[in-house]
Formats: sequence, structure tokens, C-alpha cells
Amino acid sequence: MKKSEVRSQKSEVKLSNLFVPGFKAAGIACGIKKNGSKDLALIYSETPAVTAGMFTKNKIKAAPVLLDMQRIKKGLCQAVIINSGNANACTGKKGMAAALKTASLLEKKVGIENGLAMVSSTGVIGELLPIMNGIGKGIPKLVNVLSVNGWSDAAEAIMTTDAFPKVAIEKGKIGGKEITILGIAKGAGMICPNMATMLAFIATNAAIERRTLQSALKRAVDKSFNCITVDGDTSTNDTVLILANGKAGNREVRSQESGVRSKDYKTFCNMLERVCLKLAHMIVRDGEGATKFLEIKVKGARKQIDAKKAAMTIANSLLVKTAFFGEDANWGRIIAAIGRAGIDVRENRISIYFDNVPVVRNGIGTGKDKDAMQVIKKKNICLTIYLGLGKAEETVWTTDLSYEYVKVNAAYRT
Amino acid sequence: MKKSEVRSQKSEVKLSNLFVPGFKAAGIACGIKKNGSKDLALIYSETPAVTAGMFTKNKIKAAPVLLDMQRIKKGLCQAVIINSGNANACTGKKGMAAALKTASLLEKKVGIENGLAMVSSTGVIGELLPIMNGIGKGIPKLVNVLSVNGWSDAAEAIMTTDAFPKVAIEKGKIGGKEITILGIAKGAGMICPNMATMLAFIATNAAIERRTLQSALKRAVDKSFNCITVDGDTSTNDTVLILANGKAGNREVRSQESGVRSKDYKTFCNMLERVCLKLAHMIVRDGEGATKFLEIKVKGARKQIDAKKAAMTIANSLLVKTAFFGEDANWGRIIAAIGRAGIDVRENRISIYFDNVPVVRNGIGTGKDKDAMQVIKKKNICLTIYLGLGKAEETVWTTDLSYEYVKVNAAYRT
Repeated sequence: MKKSEVRSQKSEVKLSNLFVPGFKAAGIACGIKKNGSKDLALIYSETPAVTAGMFTKNKIKAAPVLLDMQRIKKGLCQAVIINSGNANACTGKKGMAAALKTASLLEKKVGIENGLAMVSSTGVIGELLPIMNGIGKGIPKLVNVLSVNGWSDAAEAIMTTDAFPKVAIEKGKIGGKEITILGIAKGAGMICPNMATMLAFIATNAAIERRTLQSALKRAVDKSFNCITVDGDTSTNDTVLILANGKAGNREVRSQESGVRSKDYKTFCNMLERVCLKLAHMIVRDGEGATKFLEIKVKGARKQIDAKKAAMTIANSLLVKTAFFGEDANWGRIIAAIGRAGIDVRENRISIYFDNVPVVRNGIGTGKDKDAMQVIKKKNICLTIYLGLGKAEETVWTTDLSYEYVKVNAAYRT
Repeated sequence: MKKSEVRSQKSEVKLSNLFVPGFKAAGIACGIKKNGSKDLALIYSETPAVTAGMFTKNKIKAAPVLLDMQRIKKGLCQAVIINSGNANACTGKKGMAAALKTASLLEKKVGIENGLAMVSSTGVIGELLPIMNGIGKGIPKLVNVLSVNGWSDAAEAIMTTDAFPKVAIEKGKIGGKEITILGIAKGAGMICPNMATMLAFIATNAAIERRTLQSALKRAVDKSFNCITVDGDTSTNDTVLILANGKAGNREVRSQESGVRSKDYKTFCNMLERVCLKLAHMIVRDGEGATKFLEIKVKGARKQIDAKKAAMTIANSLLVKTAFFGEDANWGRIIAAIGRAGIDVRENRISIYFDNVPVVRNGIGTGKDKDAMQVIKKKNICLTIYLGLGKAEETVWTTDLSYEYVKVNAAYRT
């Protein structure tokens, strides 16, 4: 596969800085992937960590997702094991038994309490997860190489069709204590061959109250991962988990303080959002066959949900995506997408910009197609739409659609 | 553009049979299309005809759509003029003036009452419709060649990226009188480069009450054209019009008779549905770059709307489409699409068939992937999904997604 310029952008983090106090990580090959690549990852906290999670809204949920949704209720977790190459989805009771077996083998090996391990899987649907000859043999090796510097190995082991591992880190101070938030993710673009499965695992040494952590995670995911999966191709396995072990010794972050949103909470939310946004952008840049990175801003909407619907409808339009690939500033396709977004619009109030070039004003073309054609030749393009109806806005990110994408997806599995 | 086997399938109607008593049609080139192809069509009824219509649900509507939506209220029409090559959309007041001018020039030339002409356009968005040097000069020529045998010229003149003209005809008896229903359509596949614009114009010599005609048209469109536009890429110009001039002299068809649905109405509905279905299937077969014609049946749903949602979500999934193009019987992508269709499903009740090969039973793979791989090599494939929850069902039609599609769409306009 030819890697495009857009896709080859790597994580900009130095490996030596990838470290969160009180956490270890690892990634190895256990034989699930036929080509011998890394396919088993582990994240481990020295002490049970406060945990929050978000899971796929697909009605068909993989066994590990069902297991984690049960376990997250406790709000505590000490180890997360993730395999790639097999989704453990549509595998019935045997699949659930395999997920439970994976968790219990891990719990015994690292010596943590029953119920404190979570499990995640990504890969092909409908095949049984190999326990005896795969994960069972892998776990001792995996635990053996656990290290404070194991994050990049873990990021590599959760990849499926990803062109590069995805890691992001933020450091900051909360209540005078140094806080680190580190995340790893997998997923390739708007829709990856393996069903757009998006996984992210985040570790922090902050002390934070459980419901506050869940609320911060939801805010961050809504502003990042939920602004990129562009065509609703929600997978059976999508999962985001965050573990907070409190090693920083800060006063526990709570969302409210004397009835108002606390400063610590705001700081934590901002840091977490930046980590999620960096990972989300890496996923878009890693889109199959992507040649362009598109930022789509919708402004002047009545409600934020309207702005998001319009932005997502544009981002999901095959006609818009192929026009960007063909470097054609075809605004007719954009305005038609807005019109069918299911929101209230007034044609004669709509304006559209390619970067700072206005192509439509008050619903009518400005004739500046030549200038727009220059913008559309760039690798990074910002499309701004003004609806002229209110003050709400939303931004989403996507890529163009190339025939490389179709080729890659048609060839997968065969 | 290489035309695939699926796409090259022509209308099977003999030209000499294309005739509806009391109607004339014509198609000519008036200079809107730069390559000199036919771009102006006319359908004319000797007497004012009872008329019904359905229009795009896109909030951004082209000027001719807005004009027709006004005029349809009267329920009578005597002539429809259609141009291709220019959508007359996003053209503001000038666009509406151009649509009105087109109608009034036509009304004068054919000598019909003001308000009895309808107008339709398809093509590029955002450019002004040429009246003086295009349509204005074309109308006299067009009226001059009006003929009872002009239907195939008209069908050709409404094409944009279509590979072949689309005509369908049905004959039958209602109340002892011979009834003809003839339709022409344009549109190329699930999403054509020119924004999926789908136009259909239907003429019949049946005598039918106006509201009955509207209700029959809605039923037929819901079962045909609304079961193919597969990704919601509703255009600014979509239009279906039917004109019934009553020349057959049958007793006027009414939907109810002594409080029950009348036999005449059922006969008329069946004939009209067959015409619409033939045209709709031709549109799918004409899909850009299509190599396969897919019939997707969802059975055992609680409600019909659920069956349609599931079928449409599968039909719209890029992952499903590219898998069919790649001839990979990847049922994981199908079950994942069902799970995110926004309907209630039970994983362990789902069964999936490729033609008559079961690939999933009760949510679990049957292992018959080899047999399924044989089916998927065919040009015409029927995918059947059993939800196991009720008795409702729905069928939709679509094509695969090839890189030819992306190429064609990326290259359009430039």
C-alpha cells in the first residue's frame, strides 16, 4: 500500500517521555496475527485505579465489550488486556467464555483481585479467540516484559490496519501536583477495513472522583472521537477506557466545588480533551488511502446538534469526499448535503468558505471558483459554513475518499 | 468510461410500442450541454391532465421544484419541459425568473393556459439557466418535432451521466378499457456524480381522480425509487410527476368504493408500481462503476420501517459495498451494519443468506464461507436477512462500490 503524505504523519512524542507514574505497559506477539506482528497489549496500574469508559452504541456488541460494560459498574480496574487480529464478536457463549478466561488468566498471573481486569479485542468478526495456543501462552510473556516504558509496544500491539501507532501525552499541574495523561489508540480513518473499530486506552496519575472522571471522559470523547467517525460505521468493539490511579497525590478532582464547576475539573477536562483530540486527528490522518485532512466547521446554527448534523452530513457525503480527492471545489455538493442534513436551514443565509475564500454568499455562488481551486490543492483544508441562524457551532474532521480506499477495502480478508 | 456488464443492460421495450393515447413527446439539443447532446425534453397532453407529483425532501430546492410544488396544487398540467446540463439550483431570484420564463414561453408556443406547464431541470448547481440563447431558441424547435413517438428522444434528452435512456411501459385493462402507463427516468445509480438527481415523468391515458392519483403515486414511489437512493444523497432537484389525461374513457378510478379499496385502484397501483420498479432497477444498474446488482431483503422485522432501516443501512455501508466489489462474503460487515441501524435487534436471532447459502444462523457463522464465495462471484446477488422478531419485511436494491465510481466522481466537472 502506498502511504500518502497525509497518512504518514507520525506521533510527535519522544519515546523516552512516555511514562505515567504508577503504570506499566507491554506489547508482544502471541500468534493471533498470522504474520507474527505484535497482537497482545497490557496496561497495568500498581494499585486499583478509578475507571471510566465509553462503549460502542452498536446493538451487536462483542463479548469483551459486554464484559467490560459489566465490570465498569464497579468503577475500579487494575489491568487492561487488549488483543488485535480477532474481534471476538458474533461468537456467542464461547466468545464470552473466552473473554472471561482471558481476564481470569491475567488476574492470576499479575496477582490482582478477581474482577479487576478488563478485556478488549479488535480484528475479524465471527472467529473464536484462540486461548490455549494464543492468549494463554502470551499472558506470561506479556507480564514478564511489563515496564514503565512499555507504552509504544502496547500502542503497536493494538494496531490492525493502522499505518502507525498512536500515542499522545499531556502534562500539567492540578492543585500544585504534576499530572500526566497518556493515551494510546487504534483506528484508521473514517472507516477502516476492520469495521472502523476505534479503541483508546488512557492512563493518568491524577486523583479524581469516579463520576467526575466519567463526565470528563464523555465531554472529551464527544469533542474528539465522536467528531471523526464520520459515517456512523460504529463497530461492534469500539471502546474508550480511562484509568486514574491517584499517584499524583492531588486533592481529588471533583466536578463541583461550592456549587460551581471546579477549576481543577476544568484543567483536567482540557488536558484530557487535548489527548483525545490528538489521538482522534491521528486516526483521521491514518485514513485508508487518504490524501487530504479536512476540517469542517459549521457556524451560526440555532443549536449545537444542528451544527454537528450539518458538519457530519457534509463529512459523510461520498460526493463531497470524492470531489475533494479530485481537487474540485464543487460547492453544489456541499450545499446539497446541508439541505438534506435534517436541520432547519435558509438557503439565502448560507455562506461557504474554502479556507478564507468565499465560494457562496447568501446561497449564491461568488464566482471565486478559481481561488477555491488553489485552496483545494492543499493537503490540509478548512471548510467553513455559516448558516446565519444562531450562535451555535461545531467542528468535525474527515478525509477525502480515494480509489485507494476502495481497493484496500475490497481486498481485505481475501 | 468502461461500461460494466451490469450497467450496460438496456431498456427491453420496443420503440414502436412507446405510445400513450393523447400524449406527445420530444427531445432535442438546444445548446446547454457543451457536447451538443440532447438537453431539452417535452411531454405534452392534448387536453389538461390530472397531475400528481413527489418532490425532493432536500431543504435546498431548485427553482423548478419550487415552481412545480406551487403549480401541482391545482392538480392539472398539460405540458412538462425538462432540461439537462443545468440544475437551476442555488440561483436565487434569477433562477426562479428563468423557470417562470421557460414555462411561459412554452405555454405561449403550444397554446395552453397560463399555469398549465411544469418545469424540471438537472445538471450543474449554481449556474444560471440560459434562456435567450438556449431554452428560448430551443422551445420552437422542440414543439415542432412533438410526436406520439417522441418518448425515446425525450428519455435521451433528460440524461446527464446516464449510460442509457430509461423507459418502461405497462398495459392493462381497467373497467374494460385498455390503459397504458409509460414512464421515462434519469439517474445513475445510488449516487450519481450530478448529486443523485432522479427525475421520472409518467403518462397514462387512465381516467383517475386527483387524490387517488397522488396516493397511487406515493405508494409506487415508496416501493421503487425510495428503495434505491441508498445513501440519502437526496438532490436539490428530485422530481416524479404523473399526468393522467383520461383518454381511455374508463370510469374514473377512485381509491374507495362502497367503503373498501376499489379493484380498479388496485389494478392501477400494480401497473404503476411495475413501471416505477422497472425504472428504479434501471437506475441502479446504471450506477457509476457498478459491477453487481444487489437485492437486499430484510424479513422477520417487528415493523416495516425497521426492515427498511436495516436494509438501507446495509445498502449504504461502504464496507459492505466494497466487500461485494472485492467478492468477499464478509458477513461481519453486514451484521455490524444491522447493529447500528437504529432498530431493536437480537443478535442470537439473526440469520443471513447469500442467495440460498446460509452464512449466519442465530447470530453465529455457519462456516459456509466457501459456498458464499461462489454466490458472490455472480452479477446479481440476493442477500436475505432474517431478524426473527416479527412478520414485517422490506426489499431494497443497490450496487457495489468500485474504484471506478471514485474515479468518475472525482473527475466530474473538472
